[in-house]
Amino acid sequence: MPAGPDTHLLLRAFVDELARCGVREACTSPGSRSTPIVLALVRDDRLRCFSHIDERCSGFFAVGAAKAACRPVAITCTSGTAAANLAPAVIEAWQARVPLVVLTADRPPELREVGAGQTIDQIGLYGSAAKWFFEVGTHEATPERVRWMRMLACRAVWTALDGRRGPVHLNFALREPLVPPVELGEDPLPGRSAGRPWLLRGGPGPDAAAAGRALAVLARDAHRPVVVAGRAEPGLDAIGAACHSLGWPLLADPLSGARRGGAAVAHYDLLLRAPTFSATNAPDLVVRCADLPTSKPLRAWLESLGDDVPQLAFDSQAAWQDPSASVHAVLGSDAAATLVAAAVRAPATDPAWLSAWRDADARAAGAIDDLLAGELSEPRVARELGARMPAEATLFVASSMAVRDVESFTAVRDDAPRVLCNRGANGIDGTVSSAFGAAAVSSGPVVLLIGDVALAHDVGGLLAARRGGLSLTIVLLNNDGGGIFEFLPVASERDAFEEHIATPHGLDFAHAAALYGCEHEHVASVEGLRDGLGRALDSPATTILEVRTARAANVALHRELAAAAVAAI
Amino acid sequence: MPAGPDTHLLLRAFVDELARCGVREACTSPGSRSTPIVLALVRDDRLRCFSHIDERCSGFFAVGAAKAACRPVAITCTSGTAAANLAPAVIEAWQARVPLVVLTADRPPELREVGAGQTIDQIGLYGSAAKWFFEVGTHEATPERVRWMRMLACRAVWTALDGRRGPVHLNFALREPLVPPVELGEDPLPGRSAGRPWLLRGGPGPDAAAAGRALAVLARDAHRPVVVAGRAEPGLDAIGAACHSLGWPLLADPLSGARRGGAAVAHYDLLLRAPTFSATNAPDLVVRCADLPTSKPLRAWLESLGDDVPQLAFDSQAAWQDPSASVHAVLGSDAAATLVAAAVRAPATDPAWLSAWRDADARAAGAIDDLLAGELSEPRVARELGARMPAEATLFVASSMAVRDVESFTAVRDDAPRVLCNRGANGIDGTVSSAFGAAAVSSGPVVLLIGDVALAHDVGGLLAARRGGLSLTIVLLNNDGGGIFEFLPVASERDAFEEHIATPHGLDFAHAAALYGCEHEHVASVEGLRDGLGRALDSPATTILEVRTARAANVALHRELAAAAVAAI
Repeated sequence: MPAGPDTHLLLRAFVDELARCGVREACTSPGSRSTPIVLALVRDDRLRCFSHIDERCSGFFAVGAAKAACRPVAITCTSGTAAANLAPAVIEAWQARVPLVVLTADRPPELREVGAGQTIDQIGLYGSAAKWFFEVGTHEATPERVRWMRMLACRAVWTALDGRRGPVHLNFALREPLVPPVELGEDPLPGRSAGRPWLLRGGPGPDAAAAGRALAVLARDAHRPVVVAGRAEPGLDAIGAACHSLGWPLLADPLSGARRGGAAVAHYDLLLRAPTFSATNAPDLVVRCADLPTSKPLRAWLESLGDDVPQLAFDSQAAWQDPSASVHAVLGSDAAATLVAAAVRAPATDPAWLSAWRDADARAAGAIDDLLAGELSEPRVARELGARMPAEATLFVASSMAVRDVESFTAVRDDAPRVLCNRGANGIDGTVSSAFGAAAVSSGPVVLLIGDVALAHDVGGLLAARRGGLSLTIVLLNNDGGGIFEFLPVASERDAFEEHIATPHGLDFAHAAALYGCEHEHVASVEGLRDGLGRALDSPATTILEVRTARAANVALHRELAAAAVAAI
Repeated sequence: MPAGPDTHLLLRAFVDELARCGVREACTSPGSRSTPIVLALVRDDRLRCFSHIDERCSGFFAVGAAKAACRPVAITCTSGTAAANLAPAVIEAWQARVPLVVLTADRPPELREVGAGQTIDQIGLYGSAAKWFFEVGTHEATPERVRWMRMLACRAVWTALDGRRGPVHLNFALREPLVPPVELGEDPLPGRSAGRPWLLRGGPGPDAAAAGRALAVLARDAHRPVVVAGRAEPGLDAIGAACHSLGWPLLADPLSGARRGGAAVAHYDLLLRAPTFSATNAPDLVVRCADLPTSKPLRAWLESLGDDVPQLAFDSQAAWQDPSASVHAVLGSDAAATLVAAAVRAPATDPAWLSAWRDADARAAGAIDDLLAGELSEPRVARELGARMPAEATLFVASSMAVRDVESFTAVRDDAPRVLCNRGANGIDGTVSSAFGAAAVSSGPVVLLIGDVALAHDVGGLLAARRGGLSLTIVLLNNDGGGIFEFLPVASERDAFEEHIATPHGLDFAHAAALYGCEHEHVASVEGLRDGLGRALDSPATTILEVRTARAANVALHRELAAAAVAAI
């Protein structure tokens, strides 16, 4: 953009439109070239701006905030590798369908590829992970161009939200001077009246009532339907009542928000390890909502059902989640609305069908409770959090072991807390930052359940506690290495396993807490966890509750739990 | 690749060829999908394998190692955002022309875009920053295919080295089982005899003798030539003698390795701030070697020389460094060899020309020494390190202020230590990791000069001290924020400056040292720095020597130094 006030006038209008379209949060990082964008964001009173030294943290913070708030978050950073540090979060946002508006600062064309500082090729930097890339170019702030800029901002937001949600990337070529004149002056073209965005886009999606009628017709011949619900933001809380009224077992990942109510089945990951149970409880109709749950036994079971068992998937965002090519039909309508519509018309299912699932679930729950009584363990921590966290709280879980334990061992609970996780690309990177992002926009407290490797990976994310004054309760399962790898065949390759796969680090996270101004305590018993959780949730500080576990014992316990649950049903 | 031993046989042959081509270091990170690549690397005795929990650190570690060792380094990581975390380092390697062989693990096609875990679009993931991208596909380990695999590995290494050096990216689709059978068996096609690579590529570059004759002809009419030398790895130590024999002032960035000998001018950044000096010492021939130095006054001076003053650039790697479009001719030959050849034939330059520069440099040096006597300050730290570090040591400097202070305030020294910096994209990211990478392959000690924001950005890089048992001396200039931004106009935008540009963090890095098992001491005087440096260089541990400074005072001191140097000449 040209020198003088033009850049600043154009960016002020751009940011004005972001705010008019509903953006409420923005993330910044230090830098010089991004100054015009940062100033425009910071000077708009409708936006809360969060500063992050590390752009990777900034990106994942934005992912967490957008997930928890269910609205697009803006991010900016300076030119060069700063922008590349956002790549992991942009990719997670693409995979997990999280709306982000990424505004990278760049040098203008005359400073590209000539050895000017901090200049890299930012054109299409995020490749296929950006839903939309746009090179903004340089402009004078004529009324026509401000008008175009307002439209561009709206288009960025609506594109992030439309259909399959995701990140959009606008690259701004910025010329000096990078600071505005003292008096920036009037807007050459003010926005529309009454705070309306320049451009609105939206409207109804596919007709849920019609889809519900179609589903009811399909279900007419089904005697043993099951509903499988995976990760969804906002949660699928509303499907529980419909499933209950239909008499359809609801196999609900905690990430779906639907592990509640009279139809929910919690321990499908354990139940489906029992060959007899899986075989005798094979469904004749599968309705899948949102993402596929993580559970391998569930995925294998769905794959094994036979090619004539209809499997329907609600996939309003074109996520195409079906690794086994089992799906027969995809519905683009809203899952909850469609199930509610179907419940009105579908015939009642024999109550024995739901009871068979619920009874087995209760027996598995009993076996788990028996085995987990006493000592604190990784599965017990997951079960405890599911049972004890306040209803208004959010549980953010790390990928890798934490999300699997929460899926396997969290019981059905009608007032279950919300559970979030970065399950788009399932990376362990950025987890701390995303949890802080969720904490920044959530009204209730946020608890992060995380392992030591993921915490070591994003340890810099703890800086949000100090700089942002944000409060988070971190329950750290520390087994000094990647516990999940102990479950894999590679664990027997002893020459390489410890050093290159398990990667024990010997970190004493009390020092990390001291570095970032967090509270830290060791927790060694169930009572200790309960007490610590109580204190942490009451504290305005970020607290790390560290549970030490042993990797080998953890593997053994998981195998015992599976065996006990299978034996119980 | 198919199940069974095939994958492992192919990868063993691939890694065998990497080693035959001269690769000696590899970096790994934890993960499951990358198991076959990790095992092949770890099980080749010719490779030292460094494990990193954070792939971003791994990538920058590889950059530092490849820079310091001047040979390609291999990196692998698991699928998903793990690979995206390498992006900043891959981009730095592209910009700085550092050879890397990036081997990403991926899921096979049938697990892509179907909701399988940890799967993202890795095809062309690094965009234009990868010199070469290749999707390896899946193969059986037939002799023909092993032969092709051996060629592929050689091609990866030679492509990273050929012409413009840089990173290459090979994406490996890997199917289960990911661990090899107990007995992997014979190689279906062993490599060539006598440890030779399957394919050698190389040969002489453009003829330096001929280029030298051409340069001598050009120089015949020149009475006032100057040589400007910027970042180069390996260093341009050899040009000093040629410049001295030619009587050509050598304006040498410490990153060139050429700030030594009787022709070197150290304080050009300050000299060229004096309008009289710049005008009266305008050259009639400029010879540029390697990258452009960072100095803004130097860059502005080169731009101002007039379009008829011939400027020649040695650019054997097609870096195209010329932001002001001042270069008349580019020579593809080796700078040192060409200058040596030219020195034989070029007429002697009036010794007064070199003396004018050297005398001014000496006066500037005197003024700097006077002003820096006494208290420890950021410029004094840079000057001390340049003067005191052992000749066999390496100084790794962070981008941002550290590299500028080293350029401005390091004196000429015949046994100057090597100076390295990530100046490709000039990011502050990954600096700690790159310095550890340099330390891992250097025979002498390595000192990192870094500011607090860069250290906070890559604090996780310190884990290399603990896990890799690596020793590094870190001289930390802590002014609690981005000191460089105080020099910019944005410093007057007070509503946004502190929080979003300067980003003070209040970190006490003693806790970071404790977390990662490093020594830490505060240094508050010149003697303290000397003593601390002595202890740190003798210690097998990584030591952080922390110098507290104030941002505002630092700006004032820099302005005083410039004024004093200008007044002195």
